[in-house]
Amino acid sequence: MGKPLRTPLRGIVPPMITPLLGPDTLDSAGLERLVEHILAGGVDGLFILGTTGEAPALSYRLRVELITRTCRLVGSRVPVLVGITDCSQSGSMEIACAAANAQAAALVLAPPFYFPASQAELTGYFERLIAQLPLPVFLYNQPGNTRHVIGTELARRLAELPAVLGIKDSSLDMIYFHKLIRLFRDRPEFTLLVGPEELMVEAVLLGGHGGMCGGANICPSLYVDAYRAAAAGDLQRANRLQQRIIDISATVYRVAQDESSYLRGLKCAVSLKGICGDFMAEPIQAFGEADRAEVRRRMVAAGLVDA
Amino acid sequence: MGKPLRTPLRGIVPPMITPLLGPDTLDSAGLERLVEHILAGGVDGLFILGTTGEAPALSYRLRVELITRTCRLVGSRVPVLVGITDCSQSGSMEIACAAANAQAAALVLAPPFYFPASQAELTGYFERLIAQLPLPVFLYNQPGNTRHVIGTELARRLAELPAVLGIKDSSLDMIYFHKLIRLFRDRPEFTLLVGPEELMVEAVLLGGHGGMCGGANICPSLYVDAYRAAAAGDLQRANRLQQRIIDISATVYRVAQDESSYLRGLKCAVSLKGICGDFMAEPIQAFGEADRAEVRRRMVAAGLVDA
Amino acid sequence: MGKPLRTPLRGIVPPMITPLLGPDTLDSAGLERLVEHILAGGVDGLFILGTTGEAPALSYRLRVELITRTCRLVGSRVPVLVGITDCSQSGSMEIACAAANAQAAALVLAPPFYFPASQAELTGYFERLIAQLPLPVFLYNQPGNTRHVIGTELARRLAELPAVLGIKDSSLDMIYFHKLIRLFRDRPEFTLLVGPEELMVEAVLLGGHGGMCGGANICPSLYVDAYRAAAAGDLQRANRLQQRIIDISATVYRVAQDESSYLRGLKCAVSLKGICGDFMAEPIQAFGEADRAEVRRRMVAAGLVDA
Amino acid sequence: MGKPLRTPLRGIVPPMITPLLGPDTLDSAGLERLVEHILAGGVDGLFILGTTGEAPALSYRLRVELITRTCRLVGSRVPVLVGITDCSQSGSMEIACAAANAQAAALVLAPPFYFPASQAELTGYFERLIAQLPLPVFLYNQPGNTRHVIGTELARRLAELPAVLGIKDSSLDMIYFHKLIRLFRDRPEFTLLVGPEELMVEAVLLGGHGGMCGGANICPSLYVDAYRAAAAGDLQRANRLQQRIIDISATVYRVAQDESSYLRGLKCAVSLKGICGDFMAEPIQAFGEADRAEVRRRMVAAGLVDA
Repeated sequence: MGKPLRTPLRGIVPPMITPLLGPDTLDSAGLERLVEHILAGGVDGLFILGTTGEAPALSYRLRVELITRTCRLVGSRVPVLVGITDCSQSGSMEIACAAANAQAAALVLAPPFYFPASQAELTGYFERLIAQLPLPVFLYNQPGNTRHVIGTELARRLAELPAVLGIKDSSLDMIYFHKLIRLFRDRPEFTLLVGPEELMVEAVLLGGHGGMCGGANICPSLYVDAYRAAAAGDLQRANRLQQRIIDISATVYRVAQDESSYLRGLKCAVSLKGICGDFMAEPIQAFGEADRAEVRRRMVAAGLVDA
Repeated sequence: MGKPLRTPLRGIVPPMITPLLGPDTLDSAGLERLVEHILAGGVDGLFILGTTGEAPALSYRLRVELITRTCRLVGSRVPVLVGITDCSQSGSMEIACAAANAQAAALVLAPPFYFPASQAELTGYFERLIAQLPLPVFLYNQPGNTRHVIGTELARRLAELPAVLGIKDSSLDMIYFHKLIRLFRDRPEFTLLVGPEELMVEAVLLGGHGGMCGGANICPSLYVDAYRAAAAGDLQRANRLQQRIIDISATVYRVAQDESSYLRGLKCAVSLKGICGDFMAEPIQAFGEADRAEVRRRMVAAGLVDA
Repeated sequence: MGKPLRTPLRGIVPPMITPLLGPDTLDSAGLERLVEHILAGGVDGLFILGTTGEAPALSYRLRVELITRTCRLVGSRVPVLVGITDCSQSGSMEIACAAANAQAAALVLAPPFYFPASQAELTGYFERLIAQLPLPVFLYNQPGNTRHVIGTELARRLAELPAVLGIKDSSLDMIYFHKLIRLFRDRPEFTLLVGPEELMVEAVLLGGHGGMCGGANICPSLYVDAYRAAAAGDLQRANRLQQRIIDISATVYRVAQDESSYLRGLKCAVSLKGICGDFMAEPIQAFGEADRAEVRRRMVAAGLVDA
Repeated sequence: MGKPLRTPLRGIVPPMITPLLGPDTLDSAGLERLVEHILAGGVDGLFILGTTGEAPALSYRLRVELITRTCRLVGSRVPVLVGITDCSQSGSMEIACAAANAQAAALVLAPPFYFPASQAELTGYFERLIAQLPLPVFLYNQPGNTRHVIGTELARRLAELPAVLGIKDSSLDMIYFHKLIRLFRDRPEFTLLVGPEELMVEAVLLGGHGGMCGGANICPSLYVDAYRAAAAGDLQRANRLQQRIIDISATVYRVAQDESSYLRGLKCAVSLKGICGDFMAEPIQAFGEADRAEVRRRMVAAGLVDA
């Protein structure tokens, strides 16, 4: 079980990568090391089964196993958030129930991602599904992968549901995020998190509540420190840490030219720290030796591992 | 069981809608009526669990039930093709095995649709997955929903695998289709089908082998006749039938402005013919009364039902 | 002056490339050879200052010179159509007046291409501009470069203006084209032309009136013959010529991987036939020696030049 | 003449709207009032003939008149930057020469916006054109309207040209902007400006040098104050002003649903302040009475005009 969400969520809630031994085999030992590594960084929660966790590529069986094991490992230390985004509503419900059974704190839900849907259709979808969920939920705006935008008007409407605790925005569109901040200016209990780690510092400096920073799988304290500096208004320190965040983004995540370079680089980097392997679910493949060596070189340059 | 594929597939292979009584409940009686209705039209095969079949929105359990029942209903009359596209490779394998157990003739496979992937990554994905499949397979180019293109070079390479029997193209890009025709000019056993029914006649007139026409759920003989006219080079007759095909597309499928209008209009039209209900899986909703009445009016105008 | 448009336009109206000696210098001798080469192929009109003519990259001065010279060279042999698409309305008017002065037959007009505009905004734009034009006009649907679609409803509305003679569609979307055919089924005097040469045969087989085939700069008779075969319903001959059209498209136009490969390959091919040079306006550059040699090899393979 | 650029540009450089009396008629009196209004706000420069200035929709004659008059009106008070983006290179050169004659301080150049071009093609385009320019230049990354990205590698390479003083980024992609900051960390003389006013505060807080804020046409001091607060690290004040900036963006610019709503709302708002009329160049139309009244109501709510 994870810690319940008694107060509004604030801070860094890393989207955990999923340690795998094979296509449908969880790396339990790696998972334990990874959870301890991340929690040792002082994070404020843990988000499993997001995009960074390769959730859509995993079987329900493995997803349930991951939920159960992770909640048990985390115990009551931090809240665990569980992604339930799925093209099939029964799939979303199955994962949501597993999360409730494991005493996760909340769910994270993006629109289903195969069929086109208007904002009106999405409104109905969210309202009908959220009414059935056994746990509170964070909305997840992820147009890059789902091709659906949760427009500000849709966010406003869904935020009236008591079960909706906040929204994670991975749209990369900071104007949209500022409009969310404006929309919820008088509702500080509604949590606004930003997805891309490169945007966390500015999001927090200007009124956001935290971030789901993938890089926290490698070095959680960097993002926790950056969040705290930004939340405290320590601009100089925030800027210094932001530089490191961008350095990692511009080097460790850019070894390949493909769009999957971020996910491959991130998992490779965690593996180079000896935490877990870098096996990836289809269709993504772990880096070969040459790229892996390049990730290592860039991690050294970024001070993430010793030379 | 369906009919085995002893000769190259040619003609009309409708992408069957999935008759539902509820979110996770198959309409078995409707399914039986639908299968008989479609087969009575003289089609050359049946494709279940495609986009038109709302496959990504259905649970694996329901997909397996649909496969089993459909193959039993069809018997050895026509080959049954089964869509196995899934974001999770274990999900694709589960459906593929169910299809093999039910003695389906072949599988249909589009790229997984959440993560970005380069052509090189897709090459590896297809090659690894196809090597494990228990049945032959048709590639499915569906960039509109999967956001991945099966480029002509990737198609050429995959077509060298003995298990790959052909490709269904739903890209809407006829230049791409003509390049496929060119590429496989000397391999007549490799089947080239076009997805959108509005493009079937020209595809067949210029060298394609048939189509997966959604409208065949409503009036299969129209598409069968149009295919035969085109395949026989009867241009005048092909043009006359093409007019009816476009009339349906421009009226029955355009009652709503949303992108889901095609799927909703199609299922509504089948339901208005008394074959099965129009319950749809999330996130799509069946039309309300007003839109349903409008679909009916347009079907009357198109000669699809009596006034 | 060109031939006036006394009857509805039908057939092949090549979008002429613009022969240049330098950034702002017309190649008059090359222009004369090119006009004679194209007209010798039996074309039904000539379209200057389109996308293939690099119009947006040319100064108004050069555009006016091209109009004047071309109309004089063509004389009354075929109608000359002049593209007036421009981001500045005064620019469009300047070119339109030059076309009228040179006794061109008609204008071709796509939406302005910098600012976004709704269909309602485009409606007003077209209606206000067309009311001032000194010549009749063909609409030009070119979403690839202008990012604006002339939707079927907008086309229907503008087609009610007496000055609007037809539409050229370069959307690559044959379903859209079929909807145009349906829309104007009872108005045979309204001309429907397709832009991409790869789609001309099917467009004409199914009710379209011709094409603006860029390849006609290289070998006009191929496209004229293909048009005539399609218009006459000679499916076998149409198919044989379509094969050659696709061969050229898949080889001569694909020497580079860049999107500009079509324009560069086309101008290079004309130059390799000794008609004019291949100087191109910024930002496009003529091929270097290696690519040029490859274009030549592919032209030989396609039977476009002797080995 | 404007003030020469002796030190690196910093601060707010508003992209001035173009006051018009008619399609090709400058509103000289309005221009004078607008220039004085903006300069009274304490801005650090003036950018004419950008997207906000509707430059691509204006004739060269009018553009030259605007340059001449504006430089004369501004005198040596602030540097004047002149947009020369154009699909025709001779057009860009014509405007650049007019700017040099009028003693503008610098040019602003985005890629030409009709034809597709690879990064390699853009590299050549920029290098050849910049070599001929009579004034130093700021690059302008504006993928929304030009559909070309100036990738970080291209920016890095062009920044080595002595004539290139900085870059204005209107991509809306703050990760890109952070990568620019990283790239030019050691070159403080290279100016990094952000286009969208909603992103100016965060850009400056984290290392950017200022912004080209369209809203400064309405209330220049708001953006100047926000810039100064951000540049001084006064986070509390920056946040308070950012709220006002977002309020304007979310209300005054969103009266219509169309994408042109920003430009129409902005020009309408300036007109409601009595500075100049709101005539707009085609294809954009000024708001009608109802929308104009709504803009007024929202300006009152935002404290921009008295009730």
